[in-house]
Formats: sequence, structure tokens, C-alpha cells
Amino acid sequence: MRDGVETTKTIDPADETGAGHFVGAIDIIEVAPRDGLQDEPVHLSTREKVAFITRLVEAGFTRIEVTSFVHPRAVPQMADAEAVMAALPRTDAVSYSALVLNERGLERALAAGVDEINYVVVATDTFAGHNQNTTTADGLALWNRISELARASSLTTAVTIGAAFGCPFEGEVGADRLEWILRNLTEHPPDEISLADTIGVAVPTDVVHRLGMVKQIAPTVRRRLHVHNTRNTGIANAYAAVEAGVDALDASAGGIGGCPFAPSATGNIPTEDLIYMLHRMGVSTGVALESLVDTVGWLGEVLGNESPGLLSRAGIFPPARPLATLEVE
Amino acid sequence: MRDGVETTKTIDPADETGAGHFVGAIDIIEVAPRDGLQDEPVHLSTREKVAFITRLVEAGFTRIEVTSFVHPRAVPQMADAEAVMAALPRTDAVSYSALVLNERGLERALAAGVDEINYVVVATDTFAGHNQNTTTADGLALWNRISELARASSLTTAVTIGAAFGCPFEGEVGADRLEWILRNLTEHPPDEISLADTIGVAVPTDVVHRLGMVKQIAPTVRRRLHVHNTRNTGIANAYAAVEAGVDALDASAGGIGGCPFAPSATGNIPTEDLIYMLHRMGVSTGVALESLVDTVGWLGEVLGNESPGLLSRAGIFPPARPLATLEVE
Repeated sequence: MRDGVETTKTIDPADETGAGHFVGAIDIIEVAPRDGLQDEPVHLSTREKVAFITRLVEAGFTRIEVTSFVHPRAVPQMADAEAVMAALPRTDAVSYSALVLNERGLERALAAGVDEINYVVVATDTFAGHNQNTTTADGLALWNRISELARASSLTTAVTIGAAFGCPFEGEVGADRLEWILRNLTEHPPDEISLADTIGVAVPTDVVHRLGMVKQIAPTVRRRLHVHNTRNTGIANAYAAVEAGVDALDASAGGIGGCPFAPSATGNIPTEDLIYMLHRMGVSTGVALESLVDTVGWLGEVLGNESPGLLSRAGIFPPARPLATLEVE
Repeated sequence: MRDGVETTKTIDPADETGAGHFVGAIDIIEVAPRDGLQDEPVHLSTREKVAFITRLVEAGFTRIEVTSFVHPRAVPQMADAEAVMAALPRTDAVSYSALVLNERGLERALAAGVDEINYVVVATDTFAGHNQNTTTADGLALWNRISELARASSLTTAVTIGAAFGCPFEGEVGADRLEWILRNLTEHPPDEISLADTIGVAVPTDVVHRLGMVKQIAPTVRRRLHVHNTRNTGIANAYAAVEAGVDALDASAGGIGGCPFAPSATGNIPTEDLIYMLHRMGVSTGVALESLVDTVGWLGEVLGNESPGLLSRAGIFPPARPLATLEVE
């Protein structure tokens, strides 16, 4: 949602190789402080969360999902949402987003001064029941009320469609089900619709197809993708989304996280791995990759474990110092 | 190299969704018995290797790189190449490939009855020196001699260009360097040219570009891609290759392996993760995915560690038994 940043991706016509290097920029929404940390066994203190988010701002991120305003009994890791927001560095260049699931959450988010909200509608009733004790239809009805309140406050809004590619309880989620949800959302269109592959089952053709449905049904709404790497297709899905002209991609520093209500869910795609690919493809993100890799190392120390991300283990290529100077065994 | 198998990939015109599901088939070369096992700390016995390869045949693989005919001092894990070949089940449907780096290796491979050889030319002199104690130019000259001997024996041949996307010692490998190698190879074109991202630095646009170079310079040669997942771009690179019409993809069951001569190299893309993606995209491979996942579990027990592959941890989707019947905590 940055102003003045061109997010249209096109194939560079001057590229004689025929490879099609991408030109332009894409929004990266760093979700580790919310989606990542909420499922980690180690709970960060408010001070550590603020230090983490400050590092992300310094690395160049302009959109960060920093917390969720949900009931502290449901997600105790996010009980300090107000305290985190109050302590964050504020600048016009950075937009802080928060997850909101009901009117009470929206009120809290507004009072805390968030820039964007992210509301979740789950695509199947069974998963919606486990995740939010609701149904898809009730979730859509609630969105209509939240949307009006958010618009009255000039808040930027995103709706994430959870389990948009498959459900851990019901299995396949048909295109007709997604179409029904999308048509409902056009009554009160958010600024952005995010398709979430919550349990990591999607493949690139699914992504192209379902992002195409969003464009067809809600052509004025920005398109965003939230993928998990559960079956190793996450980065491929992000690439397919870039090819399909997606406006924004969620990713989690270090690939940390999961979903406490979805069996076998794993973390989001690691932001540093995604950005390595995007930059080498010619897509700008505004993020300083070396600084991000430093922060992933710092986060691993705080959490006491090595993250699932691969770039921070292998190193950025080409390396600053040729590997030829290393001893080879 | 299967006869009668259509490997052309096209977008299905009957697909009204516009998603473009792929139709057709693609060759998967299972390389775990060679590229995978050669870098594992646990050495499999000949009997275990034969059991492994037999399982792969039973799962439906038709091309398997089973061993290498190199000096046992260089790669002791492959010292039993002849014994493995002698004990394998033979059928017309399955083509066994072996790595060969010189004329002595070719003689051994022929005597052992391999169906295909895979010869490696490394794209940079520094890496060629570390890997094979040679230079790129000498490697190309040796290929010309090996090619003639192989043709005289009606052997199917592949040349793999190692470090075709980047070198651990010299950094970037320019397109001009690759072009020079490809033009040299057209003097004695192999049946198949494989581009190897030995240290896992490539991104999808690199893959599209360099596979395009192969098509332009050697239009009658089949194109193959060998990628490692070192920086989490491996599956995305495989997807880009499928879009670009690649004929064959290398992968390693469980994602095991690496390269003993390349610093920080990790395993190939896990075959089961690749095939999950391909099948869900509509690309046929002939492999029974559940059987492969079983074999990956068996291999993990033999090697005494969990493989880097993700599908065998997360499970095939949609599951045979709905996850809704599981207890959710």
C-alpha cells in the first residue's frame, strides 16, 4: 500500500535474451512478528518483539504485520498487542498491519493506531469453526460490519481467505466455493484480497488460476498471496504469483511459524529466501537482504533454534568474498 | 529417453479456467542412488543399494542414475558400481544411467551394461580443477573422444554442464561462458544436455534463459535440468523449466545428497516434493507417489536421519483419510 511505488510487473521488452527479467517492484508483507511468533514455543517479550520489528524497519520493510488483536486466551503470545504498538518507531514510510477477527479487535486496533487491518474469512465451515468458532457465511457477514467501521476510520483493509487452496478437515476447496466467497466480498470490497494456502497444499497452476479468479471477480482490488512451504511448493507458488502479476506477497523472516489450529501446518515461506529469488529475477522489494539475514540470525538466537530458511545457512550469492579463498576439504 | 512417451507440454486448450493445467508427461531421472548417496555419511551396502533401486523401479521410475564409474579413491561410496549393476532387476521399461568422467569409466560402464551415461563438464576452470582435476576446455575435448566411443556402442548419452548457473569458487558464470561450452558440445552433440545448478544459486528467470540458450544452440538435443535446493529456489526452478518445455528433470528421493567438492552444497530437490507438484499441475511422471513416500521413509531408516524432503512429513494432499478424523489440540 505504499504510495508512489510502481507495483506493475512486466517483462522488460529491452531484454534481448528472451528470458524476461522482471522490472518493477512488489510489496512484501513481513508477517513473522504475528503469524510467525504466534506458533513458536518460545514467547518473545514485548521488548524483544519491538527490537525485532525495529530491525525489520531498518532492513527496509515498509509493510509489517506486527500483532493481532484477538482474545488473549485464544493466542496468549499476542496479549501485548497494545504495548507493542505503543513502543514501535513510527514513520510515514512504514505501514503496520494487525490481524483483527471481530469488532472488539477492530476497536482495539484503531485505538492502538494501526495503519492496516487484516481480517480472515476461512473458506470451509469446519476449519472456520476450529479457527474462529464461526462459519464462512457468518465470517462474511461480520466482514460487512467491520468493513463499514474501518472505512469510517479511513483504515486500509485486507481480507485474507484462509484455506483458499485446501482444508485440513474437508480436503479440496472447490473453485465454486472460492467464487462464492469472492462474490460476497465484492459487496464491501477491501483494499486487498489475500489468498492463503494455510496448510501448504497449493501448486503453481492453482495459484495462477485462483489469483485469476480474484482479478475477474474483484478487478479493482489489489491481489495478495500468503503461502506456507509445508510441501515445498511455497517459493514456486510465489514465483507463479509474480508471473501472474500479484501485488503483494506475505513471507516470514526465517520461515518461522505455522498455524495452531491446522494439523501439520508449517511456517510461511522464508522472507530472505523469497527476496533472494526476487532480487535475482530483477524484482525490487526495497529490503536490504544482508540486513535481513543478520536479523534472521538474531531471531534464531532469541528463539533458541535454527530457522527453516535456507539462505541464511547457504549464504547470499554471489558472495561478498569469493568462496575460493576458503579451504576445501 | 523412453520410447513412445509424449514429453511435449502444452497448455490444455479445453481448460476453461484459463489456469493452464499442463498436459503430457515429463521424464524424471531419480539420482538419489548416485548423487544422493555419494555424499551421505552412512555408506549403503551393495545389497541395500539394490534394494533401494528395486523399490524405485517398483514405484514406476523409468530412468534412474544408479552409480558412477569413477576411481574408488575419489568416491569410495561408488566402489561397488559393477556389483550394483550386476544385481539390478532388468526390464526394457527401465533405463539405468551411470556417471562417467573418462574413457576408463566408459569402458567399465559398457562392460557393466548401463543403458545411458552421464558425462560432466564443469563450467569454470577452478571448479573443474577441484572436481575432476581438469579444465573446462580439456573436459570438452575429452567429451569428443567419449562421445565417439559411446556412439560406436549405441549408448544413450547425456552431458551435464556442472555449475552452469554459478560457481562456488569463481562466482557468477556468464552467459557467454555457457554459450562457448554449448557451441563446443554441438561438435559431438549428446542425446541430452543437462544444466546443473550444482550449488543451488539459480532463480527461475535464469533457468528460462539458459534452457532457452540450449534450445537455440542445440535445437535437436533434449533438455534436462539438475537443480539443488540450497537457497530454496529448487522447486520454483523446476516449475519454470516445465513452463519452458524442459524434457527431463533430475531429482533425489528425500532430497538427500550434495557435492563433496562444492562448499555449502546441499541436496537435490526431493523427488516426492517435485512429483507432488507435477501431478497436481496435471503433468504425468509414471511414478506412484505413495510408493515413493514409503521408500523415502525406508531410506531415512537406513541412513538413520530424516530427509530434507517435506512431503513425507506433511503427507499427500488430499489425504486418503480426512484429517478431520484426527484429534485437534
